[in-house]
Amino acid sequence: MIQSVAFIGLGAMGYRMAAHLPQHFDTVYVWNRNFEKAQQHATEFGTLAIELQNAVQADIIFSCLPTSQQVDEILAQVQLKSGSIWVDCTSGVPESARAQSEQLLQQGVRFLDAPVSGQTIGAENATLTFMVGGNTEAFAQALPIMQTMGKIIKHVGESGTGFAVKAVNNMMMAVHLCAAAEGFTTLKAHGVHLQEALDCINASSGKSGVTETVLPQRVFNRSFPLTFALPLLAKDTGIAVDLVREARISAPVIGLTQNLIQVANDLAEPNSDFSTAIKMYESWSKITLE
Amino acid sequence: MIQSVAFIGLGAMGYRMAAHLPQHFDTVYVWNRNFEKAQQHATEFGTLAIELQNAVQADIIFSCLPTSQQVDEILAQVQLKSGSIWVDCTSGVPESARAQSEQLLQQGVRFLDAPVSGQTIGAENATLTFMVGGNTEAFAQALPIMQTMGKIIKHVGESGTGFAVKAVNNMMMAVHLCAAAEGFTTLKAHGVHLQEALDCINASSGKSGVTETVLPQRVFNRSFPLTFALPLLAKDTGIAVDLVREARISAPVIGLTQNLIQVANDLAEPNSDFSTAIKMYESWSKITLE
Amino acid sequence: MIQSVAFIGLGAMGYRMAAHLPQHFDTVYVWNRNFEKAQQHATEFGTLAIELQNAVQADIIFSCLPTSQQVDEILAQVQLKSGSIWVDCTSGVPESARAQSEQLLQQGVRFLDAPVSGQTIGAENATLTFMVGGNTEAFAQALPIMQTMGKIIKHVGESGTGFAVKAVNNMMMAVHLCAAAEGFTTLKAHGVHLQEALDCINASSGKSGVTETVLPQRVFNRSFPLTFALPLLAKDTGIAVDLVREARISAPVIGLTQNLIQVANDLAEPNSDFSTAIKMYESWSKITLE
Amino acid sequence: MIQSVAFIGLGAMGYRMAAHLPQHFDTVYVWNRNFEKAQQHATEFGTLAIELQNAVQADIIFSCLPTSQQVDEILAQVQLKSGSIWVDCTSGVPESARAQSEQLLQQGVRFLDAPVSGQTIGAENATLTFMVGGNTEAFAQALPIMQTMGKIIKHVGESGTGFAVKAVNNMMMAVHLCAAAEGFTTLKAHGVHLQEALDCINASSGKSGVTETVLPQRVFNRSFPLTFALPLLAKDTGIAVDLVREARISAPVIGLTQNLIQVANDLAEPNSDFSTAIKMYESWSKITLE
Repeated sequence: MIQSVAFIGLGAMGYRMAAHLPQHFDTVYVWNRNFEKAQQHATEFGTLAIELQNAVQADIIFSCLPTSQQVDEILAQVQLKSGSIWVDCTSGVPESARAQSEQLLQQGVRFLDAPVSGQTIGAENATLTFMVGGNTEAFAQALPIMQTMGKIIKHVGESGTGFAVKAVNNMMMAVHLCAAAEGFTTLKAHGVHLQEALDCINASSGKSGVTETVLPQRVFNRSFPLTFALPLLAKDTGIAVDLVREARISAPVIGLTQNLIQVANDLAEPNSDFSTAIKMYESWSKITLE
Repeated sequence: MIQSVAFIGLGAMGYRMAAHLPQHFDTVYVWNRNFEKAQQHATEFGTLAIELQNAVQADIIFSCLPTSQQVDEILAQVQLKSGSIWVDCTSGVPESARAQSEQLLQQGVRFLDAPVSGQTIGAENATLTFMVGGNTEAFAQALPIMQTMGKIIKHVGESGTGFAVKAVNNMMMAVHLCAAAEGFTTLKAHGVHLQEALDCINASSGKSGVTETVLPQRVFNRSFPLTFALPLLAKDTGIAVDLVREARISAPVIGLTQNLIQVANDLAEPNSDFSTAIKMYESWSKITLE
Repeated sequence: MIQSVAFIGLGAMGYRMAAHLPQHFDTVYVWNRNFEKAQQHATEFGTLAIELQNAVQADIIFSCLPTSQQVDEILAQVQLKSGSIWVDCTSGVPESARAQSEQLLQQGVRFLDAPVSGQTIGAENATLTFMVGGNTEAFAQALPIMQTMGKIIKHVGESGTGFAVKAVNNMMMAVHLCAAAEGFTTLKAHGVHLQEALDCINASSGKSGVTETVLPQRVFNRSFPLTFALPLLAKDTGIAVDLVREARISAPVIGLTQNLIQVANDLAEPNSDFSTAIKMYESWSKITLE
Repeated sequence: MIQSVAFIGLGAMGYRMAAHLPQHFDTVYVWNRNFEKAQQHATEFGTLAIELQNAVQADIIFSCLPTSQQVDEILAQVQLKSGSIWVDCTSGVPESARAQSEQLLQQGVRFLDAPVSGQTIGAENATLTFMVGGNTEAFAQALPIMQTMGKIIKHVGESGTGFAVKAVNNMMMAVHLCAAAEGFTTLKAHGVHLQEALDCINASSGKSGVTETVLPQRVFNRSFPLTFALPLLAKDTGIAVDLVREARISAPVIGLTQNLIQVANDLAEPNSDFSTAIKMYESWSKITLE
């Protein structure tokens, strides 16, 4: 029986995710490197802001950090309670998940790699998607808590596979982004009305998440709001290429896209949204997608 | 005032498209190279199966043929009525549209390139998408007839742009297909449960028309039903690359995808559905996506 | 028996090529759009600078112009003598060669597409390579004159194949250039001494014309002398991709390289040597190859 | 003063390389996993075939093994003499070199990664190229011994850089191989005489080691002799891509080529020479390069 839940890392996603927990559980610990944010969360949502070492004594610990490295740093500092479950919602590295899983198992703790998608709006509305790798029994035990924050929650395989699915998802999005940039600059060069063309494609076989939301909401209106930073997409496409290499798969389109996102990231201004990768193509063709 | 409409080419799409016309117009001529099919259409839907030269005397003539070449062959045989409008629903070549448009204008006839998407089910339910290039006034005149067969009908620019949008749509679908093949073989190599991964991705940023319909309905169930032939996709990706070349756009992902679809087509059995391009990747990795 | 030879187009190559002819033939006509250059040639080498219409009355006419378009413009202005042979040393378009060949044949004139390689130094020393397409008999007749300017002179096939070989040669060079840029920026990022690495590679299986001459003579010394303009390389790689498309060959590396050279050309300053394509890679990696 | 030299690994390369040592040094130990080969070498060249543990007591130890893994296995078995130098001529992994270098340094032994090029003929004639990474002083001490086996011997940087240069060399060769396959199938599809085209290109800017030796000696004559196995080239291109990834370089042509060589290797028969990668292209285009 779960008595206590902790949430480590209260960034844009974690802050909103942890907000749902007090409605379902009596004891919810929160911790954040900048501790004021944890205190603010406690005030706002009735969670308990406590020291890291105490927070991780919960039955189930969630973490949501920028990269697997920060998770490693946290894990190196703490002593965990045998029997607990660590659910890492970071968009992490599959290999790290396998190492972390083995390391925690020696302390009697099970580790699930459970990255999420759905952005801050999904975190706010508890409609996130969880793609979860790791022990099946631990997944079953953690499922009710994940259900308070998400809608589609899938066990996709053994340790590391959750991170793998997330990395491949983001890689596929990156491919679709490049395809859209190339396709729409070509159309505009031929005098096509972009909005009308987009309406047609979104009702046809060529549609994607990118054509349905990224182009109309971020690119055509030239807003490029920073919600998912380009360097993080570059990191994720790198993880995807490492998965390809490790499995000795031939994936030329993925390989090329990783290189293109790398170039876009090398050339981008700091704090650029992933959608600014489009601007690399615009600088090549001198065509603006608006 | 439109008195008569004609439909030239009663293939899988045209047969169903023309079926809606008699509900809205008194005089609907149909013609097909294999004329028995035209006679069958007349019996079934109350259209008039007449000789090509007479059919094209309608106020508005629709055509739906395999490639622009067949349209050229028809146009070479007939004498048109000044003031009429020719609406070509073929997935044709933009350059041909421009040539055909100029040629027909000399006979006082306006030409619209108006390819459709939505497959046979969309043709049957009159929910097709029309992407239309050509004269704006002619578009306005032809719009009511297109509305009897489609739902989203957009004027995307001058002559040839309708075909351009269709080619780019299909090219983007081809890119998404390659991305899905590469991503999912990689995931399976890492022991990921494919159906669960697909459920996650279809609720995330990496989704596309391919992940939403092609993978579950054609690939994972190993049905690969022939509804859109791989050689036609190869043709369309070739048209898209020609558009890129003509506009001197840099489009590396599109260029690579055209080459990959070409290889898939070179290696495929005759009468293969476009979705069998996945099998090329499967033969490389010895991994089956099921 | 050849009585007279003409040379049309006295650019950096043509001026030096035509200089060898008076040693072997009594009557050598020269013509150039900027006619002063023709007069200067006459003074310097004993050729005869005459009007275009008279020059092309020679038994064998050579031309060496920027692109096939200039050749077309010249051909449109002149009336040729039946029985003469036109040898075009332009790096031209195969399709143009076939059209020009047919057009001249109607005047009883045979056309050879005979592009050259070897740069200005080869033109000066009469050590050029001629790759020649067209009628075999015409080739045999023109061979002695080509031998006064070149060393390796090969009949590579029918009309257009000379241009095809030149375009593919330049495309292969472009691929090698990209490979060198990518390989050497990677090595420098790993702290490798570039000159020593180049010495090793030039004695190993990875060597190419680019590693043997372009890197040491143009890049590592940062001279980038303008001898072959980047827009011309972009044009040639485009011709190569058109050959690939026409033959329905799958050539992913060629396709990608054409796109990269296009980007490099879009971003380059005017009057850039082809070797400045390297600078595109340098701007991406912030690594300078010196 | 060097008193003794050892050579570990008497494969096609090592056997010939070690043969030169007795002419210059009194004490030359040889060892090979299949020990009979060591004994045969001793008989043939006057070396001393002794047990591994004794052989590695030499002042300078050379190794030449299939991959870095075999070197690791050997190193795990032996105790080395402080002050000695280990020169590894394997085409190894840069990261392994750095680890091996650190590991041996703790035993007072310096490690040089010193892969060679020049094939068996170069080993036989002592005309190999050595690309060497590691400590400069150790390099200076080992140089005289390397000079008995090679001609061009370069210190290219710190530990691991020798392997890096070799991997990049082989990757560049792989790129040139793909470019040649694509270029020449395209030319043949256009009816070009291949041998004449090759003669022209080998006298022009598009030449490479591949066009100068691989095409004429292995491909056009359809011999494809097994001297460098395709799986080893696949391994080396993988090492090169890992170098690219590690340095966060954008290298699209290298990335694509690694994928293509992977496909070629996945589809090839066992014991195929690297040059059979050409056959992948031939199977796509149904064109044979002969």
